Amino acid sequence: MGLVCSAPKVYKPAAEVDLGPDSDEHYISPNVKAPRVAGLPVKMFAWVLETPVLGSVVLYVLKKDNLVNKLVSDADIPEPPLFTPTHTWQDIPEQNVSLAKPGWSPAERVEEAVGCLPGLADPSSPGFRRWTIRDFTKAYTSGEITPVMVARRFLAAVEECSGPDLNMALFISYDPEDILRQAEESTLRYQQGGTSWLGKMRPCVADAACVAQLRACGAVLAGKTNMHELGAGTSGINPHHGSTRNPYHTARVSGGSSSGSAAAVCAGLCPVALGADGGGSVRMPAALCGVVGFKPTAGRLSNSGLLPLNWTVGVPGILAATVEDALVAYAAMVDQSGPAHSQPQLNLPLLTSTHSMPNIRLARYGKWFDDSSEDIRGCCDKALQILRAHYGWETVDVTVPEVEEMRLAHYVTMGSECSASLATKYLDKLDKSEIGWDVRIALSAYGSFSSRAYLNAQRIRNRQMYFHNKIFETADAIVTPMTGVTAYALQDDALRTGELDYINAAAISRYSIAGNFLGLPAITVTVGYDRGGLPVGLQFIGRPWAEATLLHLAYAMQEACSKSCRKPMVSFDLLSKKE
Amino acid sequence: MGLVCSAPKVYKPAAEVDLGPDSDEHYISPNVKAPRVAGLPVKMFAWVLETPVLGSVVLYVLKKDNLVNKLVSDADIPEPPLFTPTHTWQDIPEQNVSLAKPGWSPAERVEEAVGCLPGLADPSSPGFRRWTIRDFTKAYTSGEITPVMVARRFLAAVEECSGPDLNMALFISYDPEDILRQAEESTLRYQQGGTSWLGKMRPCVADAACVAQLRACGAVLAGKTNMHELGAGTSGINPHHGSTRNPYHTARVSGGSSSGSAAAVCAGLCPVALGADGGGSVRMPAALCGVVGFKPTAGRLSNSGLLPLNWTVGVPGILAATVEDALVAYAAMVDQSGPAHSQPQLNLPLLTSTHSMPNIRLARYGKWFDDSSEDIRGCCDKALQILRAHYGWETVDVTVPEVEEMRLAHYVTMGSECSASLATKYLDKLDKSEIGWDVRIALSAYGSFSSRAYLNAQRIRNRQMYFHNKIFETADAIVTPMTGVTAYALQDDALRTGELDYINAAAISRYSIAGNFLGLPAITVTVGYDRGGLPVGLQFIGRPWAEATLLHLAYAMQEACSKSCRKPMVSFDLLSKKE
Repeated sequence: MGLVCSAPKVYKPAAEVDLGPDSDEHYISPNVKAPRVAGLPVKMFAWVLETPVLGSVVLYVLKKDNLVNKLVSDADIPEPPLFTPTHTWQDIPEQNVSLAKPGWSPAERVEEAVGCLPGLADPSSPGFRRWTIRDFTKAYTSGEITPVMVARRFLAAVEECSGPDLNMALFISYDPEDILRQAEESTLRYQQGGTSWLGKMRPCVADAACVAQLRACGAVLAGKTNMHELGAGTSGINPHHGSTRNPYHTARVSGGSSSGSAAAVCAGLCPVALGADGGGSVRMPAALCGVVGFKPTAGRLSNSGLLPLNWTVGVPGILAATVEDALVAYAAMVDQSGPAHSQPQLNLPLLTSTHSMPNIRLARYGKWFDDSSEDIRGCCDKALQILRAHYGWETVDVTVPEVEEMRLAHYVTMGSECSASLATKYLDKLDKSEIGWDVRIALSAYGSFSSRAYLNAQRIRNRQMYFHNKIFETADAIVTPMTGVTAYALQDDALRTGELDYINAAAISRYSIAGNFLGLPAITVTVGYDRGGLPVGLQFIGRPWAEATLLHLAYAMQEACSKSCRKPMVSFDLLSKKE
Repeated sequence: MGLVCSAPKVYKPAAEVDLGPDSDEHYISPNVKAPRVAGLPVKMFAWVLETPVLGSVVLYVLKKDNLVNKLVSDADIPEPPLFTPTHTWQDIPEQNVSLAKPGWSPAERVEEAVGCLPGLADPSSPGFRRWTIRDFTKAYTSGEITPVMVARRFLAAVEECSGPDLNMALFISYDPEDILRQAEESTLRYQQGGTSWLGKMRPCVADAACVAQLRACGAVLAGKTNMHELGAGTSGINPHHGSTRNPYHTARVSGGSSSGSAAAVCAGLCPVALGADGGGSVRMPAALCGVVGFKPTAGRLSNSGLLPLNWTVGVPGILAATVEDALVAYAAMVDQSGPAHSQPQLNLPLLTSTHSMPNIRLARYGKWFDDSSEDIRGCCDKALQILRAHYGWETVDVTVPEVEEMRLAHYVTMGSECSASLATKYLDKLDKSEIGWDVRIALSAYGSFSSRAYLNAQRIRNRQMYFHNKIFETADAIVTPMTGVTAYALQDDALRTGELDYINAAAISRYSIAGNFLGLPAITVTVGYDRGGLPVGLQFIGRPWAEATLLHLAYAMQEACSKSCRKPMVSFDLLSKKE
């Protein structure tokens, strides 16, 4: 194959690359030859890589035959490095939006966001609709149901999920007493009919900035959800806290790294959960679990209080059962702590009527779009047809060059930053046996990159920023499937050691990278199900700061596809008037 | 010794470091044990490092025992990386300045700068004064002497310098015909009494941005001066084009990497020369050759057209015989190509009278300041006493923490960037024998850094930016010697192979790093001579964008020390009415 030649790639200047539909740019689908490995071979591989001289030699040989060297480390790249995916603060003109003022509190922004939502759906209407924040609020306000009742149902549901029958491993930790106490306070607030005093009552200095803002809006925080250890994997298999199982099919993975957040929202345990998205870690499990995954522009949400697993690709993200709740959580969490003149305006999309949708142009790169399973391709193609039929939104064909090159450059970047960030402070002092085997292998690879590889990866970032900005001159968003495969089997031999499954890992993360490496906003929404009944997610990648357009898109997609939505196999109804 | 322990350094949070005079921060003077090596051993060492497996092992062992690993690569640093030394564009309030308007042409800015200068000194007054741009202009305007006459004298002088007696290796290339043609055009312009049409006549698209602006002001450009190959050394020894010799003593080095520029200005061949300053490459040879070396804030001069040897530390710099000419060249070259609101104002210092000097506070870190030769210490101490006596400028004692750590972090950064920038495009394709031996060794080391080392170096950059910003809250500038040693011997055994002399290299670059790693403006001016008659430079490091204060400082220093200045041993008078 022409690609597996020995010479490093010589990139032409970015400005000379043809971004049109008939470009002769070569699309590289990752041709991973490594077999899936789990159990003892994983342990043995970890031991080899951690052996001082032998490990370096093995890594040297592996990388020598690897596309990382040819496409990144040794490549000839004309552009200088671009170290961070930060975008100049600018106001994006978006249609059909409501403008939030810079000085507003989280609660005021939420109030504005709620004003952008359509009327509440009739819960008895056909087609399952997950309960939204507004459904909870309405029920609590009417007094039919109290937060304490929901908290008790939640605790029972989590216990059922954690039992030997389901063994879903959704949470790493939760404190029933604290949840009940929070619920009692919430119940009291509803009885007293007021929430505005809350911000002053609970300064919450120990919360991450995003969590503090949610709490200030009266959110009850349930606990820490499970995840792939250190975010260093995409399956959600975790040997310490148990491997998160997909509520649609408990013998399938949930995806990761924010596995527990996706599965908990999918199972109806909470309308919204948080995750950290460094390489698709919010959007990928969201797609595999059939929920909304939303990653705003880098800088829109505060990273304050997050463990800095990496510095230049990771941001907080939102997992929600519905686009409406993603919007409400987003409005609560945006970072407006800086001076008013130094931040872009916050546009909230008016979802009140689908007749007043803005005019949106989508860009699609066929070779990349189609590099997914047949069922995914089918669902996603149909979704685009629906958008055209319902709203008249056209799709233009473009070429997004060097997507595999970008995935590898992002891998070098995330790995290097994870290694530098954790190494001395945590890893060098830790007993290795406390770390999962697959993560130990990932960390060995992460620690092996040269400064030249890192710098070249940043040059590729510069090229991609140029390509994407150019494409956004002709389209409002880029549309892709969210993953190349749906939730794959969770095999027993992987439960204790983790697994190395680079074929599925590459397929899962095929479409998620631009959101992190370039700091672009991106959202995924479920558009159908494969033949096995597993959800399929579509992704929209937007212009910097143009989150409102993405939320419009996702909402339109959700509305058009809601009829086909199925109830997940493991799910809990925390709100209906049963008891 | 306590420093050579095996454990990596654990840094405390930057905000907890005491920057006061009685801080218990440990000052590390580089304890280099490597002997000076030249000739055959240099070649053998280069061969070893370039041998595939052996080279890696040797570098691994060398780095294992090296402070780079303990203080940078393996260290525990609380701060995130800061990748670039760019400063927010802000207007610095400076005293006694004239404000240049954003829309002005280079010639208009030069006119304004000339208006800031004092009256021309009487050339017959005691104490040698080098000819300035204004001296040339005055002579040309009066018609006493023409540019063509000076060009002929220049060519004769360069020939004399290049002859076997002096063998000074000042220029890599110069074109006598082109120089004479430029001089003829200049002569014509003086005869016609106009220069304003020049910008339109000569668009000069092939020049670097800085050069184009000088040319637009009517400068005659003499040629390419010699330098240390790839800027990868501080001695100015160059086996291809000959090793630049110090005009004060031709058996001494000129310093580097901009060796030829410093020596040419020193010898009176031109009032101004340019260099690229990535780690002191302008200021260090300026100090060793007794001229002014000036590196403005990163971003003040355009890097456009420079070979990108590194991306985050290198900027153009000015070498000039006098502070007046440094100011004129600076005014010509500042980059005002961006939109007016996105660049800081350009303050030009009013040097018209030393009585109207602003009030300036200097910060001095005693342990660092005194880590230089006895003669340098003596000269620099005396210079500070003079400033206090003449202008009442006080010096406050501070601690600048981790200066050796910063030097090593800068070394990792510059080396990594040089390696990534040049590797595939140039070095991988080049016959190694075309590169000097000492530079081959440097490149082997440059290519060996891990991404973790690079990222940790950027975390140290973040700390240092914090420390310096804090110190600038209490002082207008930091004062240091420019180098730890004066011009040392240029030994014959180094002429063909270069030399490895890490002791002198560390001493020369001891004070230059903050200017590059933090993008701060810095200037050096001669304040005396050691017992061997070799010049001693003092350095001022200023706040971002506060170049006018530095020029005030340097001018005051130059005026106070001018009486003690001696004529260089090899020098040429291109302007006097002899013939």
